[in-house]
Amino acid sequence: MLHTDHLIGTTYSRKGTTEFRTFNPITNQPTPWSFANATPEEASLATQKAAAAFAPFQSLSLKKRATFLRAIASEILALGDPLLEVYCEETGLARGRAEGERARTLFQLETFAQALDKGQYLEAVIDLGDPNRTPQPKVDLRKMNIPIGPIVVFGASNFPLAYSTAGGDTASALACGCPVVVKGHPMHAATGALVASAILKAAQNTEMPEGVFSNLNSNTYELGKQLVLDPAIKGVGFTGSIAGGTALYQLAQSRKVPIPVFAEMGSVNPVVVLPEAIENIESRSQWAKTYAGSITLGSGQFCTNPGLIFCLEGPHTQDFIDQLVMAFTEISPTSMLHPKIHEAYTSGVTKIAAHAKLLAQTAPTAGKHANVGIGAIYEIDGATFQKYPRVHEEVFGPLSVVVRVESEAELHTLIREIDGQLTASVLGTETTIGKYTGIFKALEQRVGRLIFNGVPTGVEVSAAMQHGGPFPASTDARFTAVGESAMRRWLRPISYQNYANEMLPQALQDGNPLKLWRSLNGALSKD
Amino acid sequence: MLHTDHLIGTTYSRKGTTEFRTFNPITNQPTPWSFANATPEEASLATQKAAAAFAPFQSLSLKKRATFLRAIASEILALGDPLLEVYCEETGLARGRAEGERARTLFQLETFAQALDKGQYLEAVIDLGDPNRTPQPKVDLRKMNIPIGPIVVFGASNFPLAYSTAGGDTASALACGCPVVVKGHPMHAATGALVASAILKAAQNTEMPEGVFSNLNSNTYELGKQLVLDPAIKGVGFTGSIAGGTALYQLAQSRKVPIPVFAEMGSVNPVVVLPEAIENIESRSQWAKTYAGSITLGSGQFCTNPGLIFCLEGPHTQDFIDQLVMAFTEISPTSMLHPKIHEAYTSGVTKIAAHAKLLAQTAPTAGKHANVGIGAIYEIDGATFQKYPRVHEEVFGPLSVVVRVESEAELHTLIREIDGQLTASVLGTETTIGKYTGIFKALEQRVGRLIFNGVPTGVEVSAAMQHGGPFPASTDARFTAVGESAMRRWLRPISYQNYANEMLPQALQDGNPLKLWRSLNGALSKD
Repeated sequence: MLHTDHLIGTTYSRKGTTEFRTFNPITNQPTPWSFANATPEEASLATQKAAAAFAPFQSLSLKKRATFLRAIASEILALGDPLLEVYCEETGLARGRAEGERARTLFQLETFAQALDKGQYLEAVIDLGDPNRTPQPKVDLRKMNIPIGPIVVFGASNFPLAYSTAGGDTASALACGCPVVVKGHPMHAATGALVASAILKAAQNTEMPEGVFSNLNSNTYELGKQLVLDPAIKGVGFTGSIAGGTALYQLAQSRKVPIPVFAEMGSVNPVVVLPEAIENIESRSQWAKTYAGSITLGSGQFCTNPGLIFCLEGPHTQDFIDQLVMAFTEISPTSMLHPKIHEAYTSGVTKIAAHAKLLAQTAPTAGKHANVGIGAIYEIDGATFQKYPRVHEEVFGPLSVVVRVESEAELHTLIREIDGQLTASVLGTETTIGKYTGIFKALEQRVGRLIFNGVPTGVEVSAAMQHGGPFPASTDARFTAVGESAMRRWLRPISYQNYANEMLPQALQDGNPLKLWRSLNGALSKD
Repeated sequence: MLHTDHLIGTTYSRKGTTEFRTFNPITNQPTPWSFANATPEEASLATQKAAAAFAPFQSLSLKKRATFLRAIASEILALGDPLLEVYCEETGLARGRAEGERARTLFQLETFAQALDKGQYLEAVIDLGDPNRTPQPKVDLRKMNIPIGPIVVFGASNFPLAYSTAGGDTASALACGCPVVVKGHPMHAATGALVASAILKAAQNTEMPEGVFSNLNSNTYELGKQLVLDPAIKGVGFTGSIAGGTALYQLAQSRKVPIPVFAEMGSVNPVVVLPEAIENIESRSQWAKTYAGSITLGSGQFCTNPGLIFCLEGPHTQDFIDQLVMAFTEISPTSMLHPKIHEAYTSGVTKIAAHAKLLAQTAPTAGKHANVGIGAIYEIDGATFQKYPRVHEEVFGPLSVVVRVESEAELHTLIREIDGQLTASVLGTETTIGKYTGIFKALEQRVGRLIFNGVPTGVEVSAAMQHGGPFPASTDARFTAVGESAMRRWLRPISYQNYANEMLPQALQDGNPLKLWRSLNGALSKD
């Protein structure tokens, strides 16, 4: 039942002769499934089909596209246990994680379907004309969002479901009316193939135009480059490394017609621990446990993993760190996603170890699992941290560096020197927080999301979520990869001037047939 | 009273030794005012002051920033006749145009002040937490827009007031809370200096932080490059040529931390004349006169100038073209903005003349004005048009190419081959328009604004305006340079998670102290 061929529109294809397999990182063995690298011709066929599908797909009613998204969700669910088993086989992640990520994926599809139900994402604005205005009559102008065109989505290694084949990028682009060509992540191609088969069924059952979705396999960089440079492609979604995302971004900007690349890249997600937060023993111990859990969750393979903990020196700082160490040593490490990720992690740890002192590692593993990411906490003082920018950079995995910060002034300096981040978290108390306004303001300049008394892991799918931060956290801090607003990445506004009512899209017509909240002469209205 | 020095924050400076003068294009003589090229140190000082001003400026209440914008408008008006005189001296444009552009500039400042009064641009979104949700409790998340940082604005040659010193880019950036460093256009540095003095007065009278605005002069490319590469600068506004805008865009993308460049560049603004629109002699004659006026308005020096007229062949097409020719020859040409622009226009006309047939020129000039842009209409058939992409490109000035199109199918092909555009216009009748749905849809893919039975010149300052189109019309079709939404270019969203109410910005607090429409758990609300 597992089609390992590329899915190009409604056709399966396998023309390439170079094959690759996915890998079980726990057993260190290849999985049973073999995939062929897509040929340049197969990739072109996919983008051509996507280009051809764009006009009919974007013309569909919002209701029809919502039905398509919900059908994808149903078909993914209908894949049942085999999907979860293949997911676990290819990632070494636990079944609970597979179930959770599947639930998230379905919820995301439903979120975008609901955005289509509401239609507010069209951002309809109407400024009525005034023929009597002097010196010139005022024209009738109406504006709304339209989709930008076919999108390429790169599957993420660390989210085989939620940020891959039918993940947030794909779902948000399809919701907008943009056909999608997925370049699946080679580490979980079988999971991707199963999900692609679900999208195919959904597309056929809801009568979507041919080419609205394709799924290509490859373990080379060439396929991605070709897709990003293809003139038919109008935007790119990517989740991965700073090097990979930056390369794709630069490539896309070098095109004759540059296109947006939304690359969600690296982040160390700094945490500031204020002395007030750890004054009493209960909260000290609680935060230590919570953070030990957050650092090691999913073997630290989350973009929001807290990799940097600024401890502003206070009477209980040492004890907090001791508690963190204690909590840490009680956690059992797990296999990382792939030998290559494990290798990169090991090499990253070495670079940190050159400048910082090892405080703790996670407990030794009981079983014989391969590619285990041994969690580690390092400690460094503020001055040394400042001296070595390498320590500011993300190490993808269950590692965190505790920075001992002598004063609020030093904390300010350190915050100014770190790169753009997805998140920053502050542990403090509501009553004393007014003392640290400057710290909050400084962090605000660096991040997309600020968390008070919480952990950065666990990215809520919500309209109020901003998942994306100043470069290099992501390539465009003005957009989010999570939540309803993720659709904005694939939209652009268009104005219609002096159009007769029946010529206008429904969203802009007199009488408001879609019953939208619209800006009407500057005021929000449903009239 | 005219300070020709650079304005750096609240200090005038003139360290450079290379001088330049502005120019009266009508008399072909330099104006009385001499300017020095800004030195690298002066430019750095301006960006450092802007960076220092960012924190206090963005923390001001919306009301205070609105007061600042309105004070700028008052001070510009208070400059009185001398501003209009210097404007006319430096541009050769008529006094009526100077007055009109001043009015537009003041209106833009007022538009953004009103946006601050309303506060909707903050796009506040609140998703309340739910501690009882399973399997995980839901966190409280609140999102709003914050300014991105200091902005560089390049003055536009063709809008010395409305898209220069205190023009739309500057006004929208200041409204957001972004300090602005203007690199004035060297062709109207004196106009710019006067406006800068008005901004200085306004900043002082309303107690804005030092460095919120600077104005630098130079006739070199080096200053612009330095500013775009300066790490303190977080965004760029530019209006000008495709070559200039693309170069700045590429430069900004090559930075270690890339920044957005909003370059509003070239456009030929295609017009489609359907046979039905010119069936009767009155409308034929009326459209011919209207378009002759639109093509030659301001010597064609508008980004929305209609440079391409696709005439779909019908029984009256030849007569329409004859009427256009007749109307054209009755128009008196005027001086262009500068000898260099005039030279580029003459060279552009030559390139068109190599492939197309001259149909008409504007009437000979009566006076002895220099740098006169002689309006021209050329004709070409669809097949030849397709053959020579050079004819698809903008010639900045009072020129339009009439393309004789044999069939709707040919029209489709031609539209597919033209570049991205700011606008497209269609002349037709409401009753027969259903015949041409495909044409409208094809144009929609190419433009930011579609006009039915109208001219593209005259860009309304309105919330429903989209001024910006697919590359190379502008570098980012997802944003507009005109209207309230122009502020979006200088904003990015930030989420606050689990913040105590008093820690939140007012826009997101319980009780809604700013009385904004906010998205609350997915529904718009003022509660």
